[in-house]
Amino acid sequence: MEEEKKKSRVLIIGATGRLGNYLTRFSIESGHPTFALIRNTTLSDKLKSLSDAGVTLLKGSLEDEGSLAEAVSKVDVVISAIPSKHVLDQKLLVRVIKQAGSIKRFIPAEYGANPDKTQVSDLDHDFYSKKSEIRHMIESEGIPYTYICCGLFMRVLLPSLVQPGLQSPPTDKVTVFGDGNVKAVFVNDVDVAAFTIKTIDDPRTLNKTLYLSPPGNICSMNDLVELWEGKIEKKLEKTFATENQLLKKIKETPYPDNMEMVFIYSVFIKGDHTYFDIESCGGVNGTELYPDVKYMTVSEFLDTLL
Amino acid sequence: MEEEKKKSRVLIIGATGRLGNYLTRFSIESGHPTFALIRNTTLSDKLKSLSDAGVTLLKGSLEDEGSLAEAVSKVDVVISAIPSKHVLDQKLLVRVIKQAGSIKRFIPAEYGANPDKTQVSDLDHDFYSKKSEIRHMIESEGIPYTYICCGLFMRVLLPSLVQPGLQSPPTDKVTVFGDGNVKAVFVNDVDVAAFTIKTIDDPRTLNKTLYLSPPGNICSMNDLVELWEGKIEKKLEKTFATENQLLKKIKETPYPDNMEMVFIYSVFIKGDHTYFDIESCGGVNGTELYPDVKYMTVSEFLDTLL
Repeated sequence: MEEEKKKSRVLIIGATGRLGNYLTRFSIESGHPTFALIRNTTLSDKLKSLSDAGVTLLKGSLEDEGSLAEAVSKVDVVISAIPSKHVLDQKLLVRVIKQAGSIKRFIPAEYGANPDKTQVSDLDHDFYSKKSEIRHMIESEGIPYTYICCGLFMRVLLPSLVQPGLQSPPTDKVTVFGDGNVKAVFVNDVDVAAFTIKTIDDPRTLNKTLYLSPPGNICSMNDLVELWEGKIEKKLEKTFATENQLLKKIKETPYPDNMEMVFIYSVFIKGDHTYFDIESCGGVNGTELYPDVKYMTVSEFLDTLL
Repeated sequence: MEEEKKKSRVLIIGATGRLGNYLTRFSIESGHPTFALIRNTTLSDKLKSLSDAGVTLLKGSLEDEGSLAEAVSKVDVVISAIPSKHVLDQKLLVRVIKQAGSIKRFIPAEYGANPDKTQVSDLDHDFYSKKSEIRHMIESEGIPYTYICCGLFMRVLLPSLVQPGLQSPPTDKVTVFGDGNVKAVFVNDVDVAAFTIKTIDDPRTLNKTLYLSPPGNICSMNDLVELWEGKIEKKLEKTFATENQLLKKIKETPYPDNMEMVFIYSVFIKGDHTYFDIESCGGVNGTELYPDVKYMTVSEFLDTLL
């Protein structure tokens, strides 16, 4: 039990979501006493399997201060994995964590580009500024944190090979946005969960941004097309869409339907994942800190689309 | 000449401005071959004294690409000290620096709060997002940089002891914004120039944000009132204005007249200078790197107002 006791007790918020579910599993499998804040605890299959795995289900929600205070009082680390559009709902949670004063690490719901470094504030309907706002609140309250920046989840743009509207990769024609050389970062969400749980008791990531940009997962559109052509053993007919053409399309398409194109613009035109140097901004590199964590490469993910 | 040769050749843009003038003087006095890009080279007294000090005046402007390329080709370091409202005019300069490929360090016009960390984007009419935009451009182009973050120049809010509308400190009544305990940073512009010139050949500040937050210059409004009361040997009648009252006033006052209050809100309510940890964001502390650089303390500045 001695080793177990040193492991932080972890509260996951958003455990029924895809990433939240992975986080909860990795947490319990890594020996952390794990709690999940659940809005509706009637045992669905998903909840039953979490509970069977040893996760303690706590009834509560981000709007219910009492349930938050109760849950936070039982743990050392809080990890939020709620959907991006609800990140401002974490404000009450941040205040409860502040009042509790006992939390050693809070990981807010980010898992994407660094919101302080993105260059799409006039296009993204506050998608990133809301995440920055939560960062500011965490730091103003002096709450210990780790931010997880992992580029894009593979399942966001790769299934269509970055072709808006397609459900599967193209087999004859492909549109490349910009010059096709700007690099973006892709990580599989299950791997993001694995790296995240690895970091929670690590002093090297305390009050830091953990970047996940694994070698093999930093690809430009030209890289992706070349990889896919190799797999289907067929050359694709490439057309290049300029920055202005993409911007025009973004403006013509109503929100939120245009958000996929906003992400394409952010990562493949502005280079929001790779234009800056991680160390210069005080970040740490997850794959260097945790070389033992296996992860899926972009190439392996594309194999699953064949 | 050997020692002189190792000193980088410096181009100052905005040399006729207050800060630019100090930068130019410190540069030449520190033995850097110094050039100043001047829109109108008819010898005013100011220009004459720069030229007498050994500064080479180069005719040109941020809008004239040829003059920029010519000036940039003569130097190793470019320091911009143009007014904040014109920071986007640096875009052409960034492109020229990129094309030249020979610049070892570019210091853009910041000299204030860290634009990526401020929390007033809905109030500041893009005052800070423009500076972030230039940062993004510099880093996307891979240009070596140092950002100078020094809180507020003393002459911005201290002459009135943070009392909008007053030209000199109050002698009987004072308004304190918020609870009066949030700390802000003040540095005298001449000292900002001194620290800036110190840093230009220092590898420790390459691709970093240099923060100037000298001990003795990190004060809350309650600190400032107490300091001033001690100097005039008289207690002031304090009234507290809440965050909402200040916000209301900001919204009722037309832009740009309300910007002074936006800065008060930013630094004394949101704590935009001090809510975050410098090292965690990859910053370096100027007063620790250059303990030999003398600087004026807030108390000494208040003495000048007696």
